[in-house]
Amino acid sequence: MPSHNGRHFLQIPGPSPVPERLLRAMSMQVIDHRSAEFGALGKQVLEGCQAIFKTSGPVVIYPSSGTGAWEAAIANTLSPGDKVLMVETGHFATLWRNMAARLGIEVDFIGGDWRHGADPAALEARLAEDNAHAIKAVMVVHNETSTGVTSRIPEIRKAIDAAAHPALLMVDTISSLGSVDYRHDEWQVDVTVSCSQKGLMLPPGLGFNALSQKAIAASKTNSLRRSYWDWEEMLKPNANGFFPYTPATNLLYGLREAIAMLLEEGLDEVFDRHRRLAAATRAAVGAWGLEVLCQDPREYSPVLTAVVMPPGHDADAFRKVVLEKYNMSLGAGLSKLAGKVFRIGHLGECNDLTLIGALSGVEMGLAAAGVPHRRGGVQAAMDELEGRSLANSETAAVA
Amino acid sequence: MPSHNGRHFLQIPGPSPVPERLLRAMSMQVIDHRSAEFGALGKQVLEGCQAIFKTSGPVVIYPSSGTGAWEAAIANTLSPGDKVLMVETGHFATLWRNMAARLGIEVDFIGGDWRHGADPAALEARLAEDNAHAIKAVMVVHNETSTGVTSRIPEIRKAIDAAAHPALLMVDTISSLGSVDYRHDEWQVDVTVSCSQKGLMLPPGLGFNALSQKAIAASKTNSLRRSYWDWEEMLKPNANGFFPYTPATNLLYGLREAIAMLLEEGLDEVFDRHRRLAAATRAAVGAWGLEVLCQDPREYSPVLTAVVMPPGHDADAFRKVVLEKYNMSLGAGLSKLAGKVFRIGHLGECNDLTLIGALSGVEMGLAAAGVPHRRGGVQAAMDELEGRSLANSETAAVA
Amino acid sequence: MPSHNGRHFLQIPGPSPVPERLLRAMSMQVIDHRSAEFGALGKQVLEGCQAIFKTSGPVVIYPSSGTGAWEAAIANTLSPGDKVLMVETGHFATLWRNMAARLGIEVDFIGGDWRHGADPAALEARLAEDNAHAIKAVMVVHNETSTGVTSRIPEIRKAIDAAAHPALLMVDTISSLGSVDYRHDEWQVDVTVSCSQKGLMLPPGLGFNALSQKAIAASKTNSLRRSYWDWEEMLKPNANGFFPYTPATNLLYGLREAIAMLLEEGLDEVFDRHRRLAAATRAAVGAWGLEVLCQDPREYSPVLTAVVMPPGHDADAFRKVVLEKYNMSLGAGLSKLAGKVFRIGHLGECNDLTLIGALSGVEMGLAAAGVPHRRGGVQAAMDELEGRSLANSETAAVA
Amino acid sequence: MPSHNGRHFLQIPGPSPVPERLLRAMSMQVIDHRSAEFGALGKQVLEGCQAIFKTSGPVVIYPSSGTGAWEAAIANTLSPGDKVLMVETGHFATLWRNMAARLGIEVDFIGGDWRHGADPAALEARLAEDNAHAIKAVMVVHNETSTGVTSRIPEIRKAIDAAAHPALLMVDTISSLGSVDYRHDEWQVDVTVSCSQKGLMLPPGLGFNALSQKAIAASKTNSLRRSYWDWEEMLKPNANGFFPYTPATNLLYGLREAIAMLLEEGLDEVFDRHRRLAAATRAAVGAWGLEVLCQDPREYSPVLTAVVMPPGHDADAFRKVVLEKYNMSLGAGLSKLAGKVFRIGHLGECNDLTLIGALSGVEMGLAAAGVPHRRGGVQAAMDELEGRSLANSETAAVA
Repeated sequence: MPSHNGRHFLQIPGPSPVPERLLRAMSMQVIDHRSAEFGALGKQVLEGCQAIFKTSGPVVIYPSSGTGAWEAAIANTLSPGDKVLMVETGHFATLWRNMAARLGIEVDFIGGDWRHGADPAALEARLAEDNAHAIKAVMVVHNETSTGVTSRIPEIRKAIDAAAHPALLMVDTISSLGSVDYRHDEWQVDVTVSCSQKGLMLPPGLGFNALSQKAIAASKTNSLRRSYWDWEEMLKPNANGFFPYTPATNLLYGLREAIAMLLEEGLDEVFDRHRRLAAATRAAVGAWGLEVLCQDPREYSPVLTAVVMPPGHDADAFRKVVLEKYNMSLGAGLSKLAGKVFRIGHLGECNDLTLIGALSGVEMGLAAAGVPHRRGGVQAAMDELEGRSLANSETAAVA
Repeated sequence: MPSHNGRHFLQIPGPSPVPERLLRAMSMQVIDHRSAEFGALGKQVLEGCQAIFKTSGPVVIYPSSGTGAWEAAIANTLSPGDKVLMVETGHFATLWRNMAARLGIEVDFIGGDWRHGADPAALEARLAEDNAHAIKAVMVVHNETSTGVTSRIPEIRKAIDAAAHPALLMVDTISSLGSVDYRHDEWQVDVTVSCSQKGLMLPPGLGFNALSQKAIAASKTNSLRRSYWDWEEMLKPNANGFFPYTPATNLLYGLREAIAMLLEEGLDEVFDRHRRLAAATRAAVGAWGLEVLCQDPREYSPVLTAVVMPPGHDADAFRKVVLEKYNMSLGAGLSKLAGKVFRIGHLGECNDLTLIGALSGVEMGLAAAGVPHRRGGVQAAMDELEGRSLANSETAAVA
Repeated sequence: MPSHNGRHFLQIPGPSPVPERLLRAMSMQVIDHRSAEFGALGKQVLEGCQAIFKTSGPVVIYPSSGTGAWEAAIANTLSPGDKVLMVETGHFATLWRNMAARLGIEVDFIGGDWRHGADPAALEARLAEDNAHAIKAVMVVHNETSTGVTSRIPEIRKAIDAAAHPALLMVDTISSLGSVDYRHDEWQVDVTVSCSQKGLMLPPGLGFNALSQKAIAASKTNSLRRSYWDWEEMLKPNANGFFPYTPATNLLYGLREAIAMLLEEGLDEVFDRHRRLAAATRAAVGAWGLEVLCQDPREYSPVLTAVVMPPGHDADAFRKVVLEKYNMSLGAGLSKLAGKVFRIGHLGECNDLTLIGALSGVEMGLAAAGVPHRRGGVQAAMDELEGRSLANSETAAVA
Repeated sequence: MPSHNGRHFLQIPGPSPVPERLLRAMSMQVIDHRSAEFGALGKQVLEGCQAIFKTSGPVVIYPSSGTGAWEAAIANTLSPGDKVLMVETGHFATLWRNMAARLGIEVDFIGGDWRHGADPAALEARLAEDNAHAIKAVMVVHNETSTGVTSRIPEIRKAIDAAAHPALLMVDTISSLGSVDYRHDEWQVDVTVSCSQKGLMLPPGLGFNALSQKAIAASKTNSLRRSYWDWEEMLKPNANGFFPYTPATNLLYGLREAIAMLLEEGLDEVFDRHRRLAAATRAAVGAWGLEVLCQDPREYSPVLTAVVMPPGHDADAFRKVVLEKYNMSLGAGLSKLAGKVFRIGHLGECNDLTLIGALSGVEMGLAAAGVPHRRGGVQAAMDELEGRSLANSETAAVA
């Protein structure tokens, strides 16, 4: 059995592997967070974030996980007893719902099967019924990290507009930002929530809120108590590149470099790459005779692919074999999907050859773990990357 | 004029310079935060923190600044309308007071002159008056980073006990932990608040709460809404080394190494070193004919020394000269001390020669900025480090 | 076309990718090379090298490339006009021959076709003819990096012994050490030449000589002028862990860690891993319908595989496509093989998934470059890694 | 006694401390040394070296120590039996003489007292006597690292010209390059020898030769055997940024960055800084009542200051106290100076505050070791840095 030599393949849907360039950037010595040098850094990252979120409005950066950024979005816009509309797209949507409830928000939670994204029509219907405009916010997860389903935010925007409803639109882009096309301003999102350890390729430790003017207006009058998360406290010093409390300087060094990397490659190219890698992954899954959890091709995630285990086989036992035998980490099924799916992350600095290496670990791992499957998934992924249809493949001609 | 060549002297009272060993530790690749390998890391740091806080109870680690850890202490123990007793030791005590107020807590704020620590007698008197036990918590800052004054927590503990008052004792050790002797259990502190970027020598990004059983009991019944900061959510997965949301893995790598460094040197040796460096700094200040802000020798801070500028001279103009001419960052006076004091940090990895280098930058900077002073501060600091009294110094004999 | 995003696949046969653990080890601050701390480091690496070379005798470490270590072997043992026996296994054997000639050595160079290793029988025959023992040394390359052919040193040892010839045996292990089983003492090698950037996984910059007593004896009387390379100058200070001139300290930090990594995995496990990866690579080459340059299965290199391009196709044009389209570096054909072969390195920290990723880049690159081939090489490599023969593959059974 | 906490003060005259920026640069992944990307790197560093050596001719870079670069200078220009003129400026000049002798060169070694540089008049006299032009080269050490004496190369140039002698001028700038003004072309030096670990602030591992056309011409006809060191082999691939054997890639990454740092600060500013620090150091030595080894103020080294120990006191015992008590490394006396001097390095990234820290370690160390001295050296150094004469110092006015 191979030992755990060589490079670990970290193919969970985040944290994604941190490029060496970013590790180096973060290894610079910390500086005085009240100095002019820091102010310049702060301005660079705050402006750079606008390019990534595609907004001309403010982006707030917290020393926190993405969960903290969820709380910030709620704490700054809502009041205890407020009603919001959320959609059960999976584990993380459910966690966000639970958080809202803990904070005293009444959540209208549209049920889901964890295999589809948020349904714009259902949202529109619910909003249309709300003549009193009791619903203060629509809160959806852009890319459900637990299921590999990407909700269609532009259509959700249209649904809200069609219902002529004034609710805020708050979107969790924790696992989509920097990997999937996202447009805060164009889609008129009010609060975009995100974090550092997925498409931004950084270690965990930064949470983000991008804000609309409407969201800022809501923050002037809502009554949820807050201090750490308070936008107003942030926005004042942010104007000069500073923060109201000690920021996570070394992660900001990394953020500056991560933004530079994304813009050097080009955001559209980054998004295309993620789509290609995801398509190749699904081609492999199909060739193996396994099922992709996501059921609507319009909602396939470019970030990760959740794969359904055949009945009677435990996804976690399989993942353990893959880790021990092939030195690769795959994502676990979460909550009600525990043991039933495994998740392949193909985000961040992932490229064609890394993906094929990862898929070979899945294919060989399926065999090693005795999971029934057909072989040929890696080959199918290569076909997809090369733009060949299976039909005209020369594979069949091989002796 | 010398250019900004060579090593920057970061002599602010935090963030303190990050030792290269810690920068290297943090530059390791991120890992799966749900893996067994992570669980082992989590256990190591959580147990290591107990040694540093000197507690057998749980320590909670947040991806946050120290400000976040303040909020966590409040959010988990208090309810809106609760009354607490705080002491105006300086800027940070005031900020904490403001935070409590924002969160709906009624603060009885004992005024102070920013030159003394929390007065145990005053606290005892106030508590003794509170027959109804309306005061739910006594909240003090151990080392006031804005003033260089260290409050005497054991005496405060005795004051509470003398008043036979059941209030929780919550202590901010943001700038003292790892630099000044501190004993969570022995001093029966209920919540100790701290962070990564001072005595722990790490970049900012981690907040800590050490908890007593009494504090945990309070958290079962208090009513402040919370989710991100909720201890219970933390403590469950922490038992196995995990976290309820994605932790700041790379900072935890650094934390593991920082704890190892502190224990290798020996906590008592670390504290002694800080005291020596602080004494040497004060010797320099005295020789310059300047005044240390702290007025009670029992409360001199081992972490930083705030120095009062002579009237008519602006501390920030002086600091600018020092930065430009000697490539050293000194701490600014904050809030009502702005321009009136500068602060010399001598914490973390600071040692004798680094301190003398720093003090020479102050002495030469005073001259360069035209601030009236006597020379000889560096010499006095050396005398102090060498254990000479000025009386028997051979300096006078020099031609 | 994919951009050059993500991890570069450096699949040349050296320098091999440097593990992050080694990059970190080398990023430590330089120390006084005359200090006790340095002496301890020196002893550690000098002793560690004995474990890697499998010798109880001295190992000499130069700040140099491997080429320098070649020169050291010659300069310390031979005299101008001396005759040596060498074998034309490929480009590097030819370069070593040229070097010997430049240094005034008369080389009897047994011709070769660059597809076979050194022939023990031919060596024995030549030595048997040399009744006068004019031949002072037999010099062979263990693993020819230009061809992927590994000569059988134990059989060469036997050939020398069978001829009862007193010639020194000098072996170049530049690309084999740490990747292929090698036994300096057991095989009675007199000088083993090596370097840092292949199986030791370090950056280039260190050259090695492992010495037998017979070699040291030769160095007492030979007459080639030398100073930098002189063993005697080295061996004296080496006894205490020091060097006669400033050593490449940071590479020695890396060497200490590299030795630790190899011993942690276990040398036998390391060698097995290289053999497996090489076998999988050859399986891929065969499936593609291409030819491995090495023609004797006993001499297949565990380190790299040189692949013959189909007539009319330029290996360098192919390599360029692979670099641009798949962000992978393959080794070029050297000298008379230029354009005719490409070389796949599978050494150092390479593991199963990295290899499959690399092979997929070759397979997709062949297609992209319009090089005729059959598909299925990656699949065949996976079969090999999984220990399946193609015969009993379940692939056929796929529904 | 203080433990070895905090930053080590590495105040030996090389290796000098490596700036974190350079450690980071060298921690990049190794690349294919035959790639276009490498060629660009190679060109950058080769051209950058021209700016540092102040030459429009070629600079050759070896993976070697500076000692190797010495050997290269000899091996490429001289023939066995050739006569050269050298000057006994100290330990390193003696070592170079010994090397030349080992390589078969006849050395006319002008004796010295290790307290003066090479005497231009003596050189001129010797050359003037050599009517037959038997002397093929004049070889001098620019900055004698063992003594802290800097020879005046322009005057030596003039001396050679005054004697109308055709000898090559070969200069060792191992410890001066990047710290002391040096002009290869203007001073018509034929071979300049240098290395990476002093003024270039890199770890050891690179040796340099800068070449004149006259030196290259000599290399066409000289007869010392060479291969590794051969310039011609280097110059051919260097034209495109490549090297004839595997270069020390990661050190080249560092070299690119080191050159950038020197040019950003400005070479003249770098030289000025070294001069100021050296003057301040000598001021301290004088104030202590100790003696600087160098006896001619025109030859004071900007790089290091060797200090004579009072009779009856052992410099190495003193250095040990300083290392143990103050975590600082000072340079030892070498060879006949062993125990009699210690050397203070003030080169590379050293700045004012670092120097004062270092000098305080010397002053406190002298006291701790019981070495008779006056106090006030640190103060005198500060006076010097501030541009005050002792006469108008306010020190006297201190109470």
